[in-house]
Amino acid sequence: MTPSQRSAPGRPKIGVFDSGVGGLTVLRALVERIPEADYLYFGDTARLPYGSKSAATVAHYAVGAVRYLQEQGAELLVIACNTATALALNEIKAAAGVEVIGVVEPGAHAAAVATHKRKVVVIGTEATISSHAYRRALEDREIAVREKACPLFVPLVEEGWLEHPVTEQVARIYLSEAFSDEASDADVLVLGCTHYPLIKPLLRRVAPAHIAIVDSAESTARDVARHLVPQLKNELRGVPLLKFFATDSAEKFRKMGTRFLGLPVEDVVHVDLKE
Amino acid sequence: MTPSQRSAPGRPKIGVFDSGVGGLTVLRALVERIPEADYLYFGDTARLPYGSKSAATVAHYAVGAVRYLQEQGAELLVIACNTATALALNEIKAAAGVEVIGVVEPGAHAAAVATHKRKVVVIGTEATISSHAYRRALEDREIAVREKACPLFVPLVEEGWLEHPVTEQVARIYLSEAFSDEASDADVLVLGCTHYPLIKPLLRRVAPAHIAIVDSAESTARDVARHLVPQLKNELRGVPLLKFFATDSAEKFRKMGTRFLGLPVEDVVHVDLKE
Repeated sequence: MTPSQRSAPGRPKIGVFDSGVGGLTVLRALVERIPEADYLYFGDTARLPYGSKSAATVAHYAVGAVRYLQEQGAELLVIACNTATALALNEIKAAAGVEVIGVVEPGAHAAAVATHKRKVVVIGTEATISSHAYRRALEDREIAVREKACPLFVPLVEEGWLEHPVTEQVARIYLSEAFSDEASDADVLVLGCTHYPLIKPLLRRVAPAHIAIVDSAESTARDVARHLVPQLKNELRGVPLLKFFATDSAEKFRKMGTRFLGLPVEDVVHVDLKE
Repeated sequence: MTPSQRSAPGRPKIGVFDSGVGGLTVLRALVERIPEADYLYFGDTARLPYGSKSAATVAHYAVGAVRYLQEQGAELLVIACNTATALALNEIKAAAGVEVIGVVEPGAHAAAVATHKRKVVVIGTEATISSHAYRRALEDREIAVREKACPLFVPLVEEGWLEHPVTEQVARIYLSEAFSDEASDADVLVLGCTHYPLIKPLLRRVAPAHIAIVDSAESTARDVARHLVPQLKNELRGVPLLKFFATDSAEKFRKMGTRFLGLPVEDVVHVDLKE
């Protein structure tokens, strides 16, 4: 073992930002893939959803939140919010002094690798879809895109109806619209919303069998792991430290969060950000 | 005719406040019942939904909005938002210099008049239900209450699925839970959310025939009319002037609003409130 390896530089600290609890599915993927790191998660729950807000407002909120994460020691930032990535990634990058990774590019990259027909369907919230961020990222890779907003999936997930006949019926309606006409031979479905991984088994059943499902959360975690390669040491393996900040009730965050993280959400601090 | 009746004091100006477009169902009921008044409607669309926010945050936002309505000349304020009424009516009343009417008391009063079994079911959003504002208002009248949150109704209405098999299936599930066990002989259903009047025909079909449906919007309009009696003159009849303020996109408000109001939403001004 060389001296540089022995003098372990400490575990890398990753800041994860979302407007709410949805980004916890990204944190979950990160923890599974990179247990050598510690994590700070910021959920701007008092000001969600970002989907109905202007790009300027979203950028202003997101920059405030990532600054806070940096003050807490985050050395790399993950924007685990499709809307914030779509509307404000450049502003966040300009304001941050560290590496910033959004969810759109990794998702688009994974879709580009997976599609043989060069034709992809992206589903997400109204805001993400109308931003056309995935469309741009995929068209840059010369891939045809059908975008489809699925506004009922988030409330269905939040209702806990993950394996419910109503959710299945809604999924059948949305996916049959998404894969209609010129998109009928698309072979990849991108989950462009952090809530959707929770209904991935149901979507897997409803979607035609030949379609590959790309989960932005997993793709983003893979991308972060690639960035961290030089820092990751085997001797750092162990249980990641998770710390949470929420702008609305810590108790509510704890309760709702556990379902999204798949792990207990314990250390939650309420934060009041100056506007 | 007495001289005081002849010297018409001008049309009363009523301020209506909601976190979004839902309160337009209350405005619709007001316009139908009191065409002698003019209306200013404030939708805090940039900061909705209030349902996921703390009482302090909701009070802060609502007070800012009603102050704005008063600056615009509102002489009576209607809080056409169940969450704001439930969480912040006292703070709003304390901050306002004019009469303030919320949606909960009129709804509870109408339910109390309608129930023979002295047993009522209230449906609403998660936030309204967990505030127990309707429970308190009804128990004060010695009426037993079953409260049931129906979080999927708002997104279903916003999706435009007003007469859709999915909405019907969801309504069957929610109402059968609501009217179960000790609430099985309740004879009144209170629509404790401003979005629900749009699915009232569907709820009428799904609910057992003997159950009376109380719509808070209509009850509130009746209450406002009672308050205004001294001011209402027959010679004021005519087309009410409607003016709208929205904190997010005016265009989006105009588009979505028409469905809720049942009238064209034209004069919309974007407002940026200081936090």
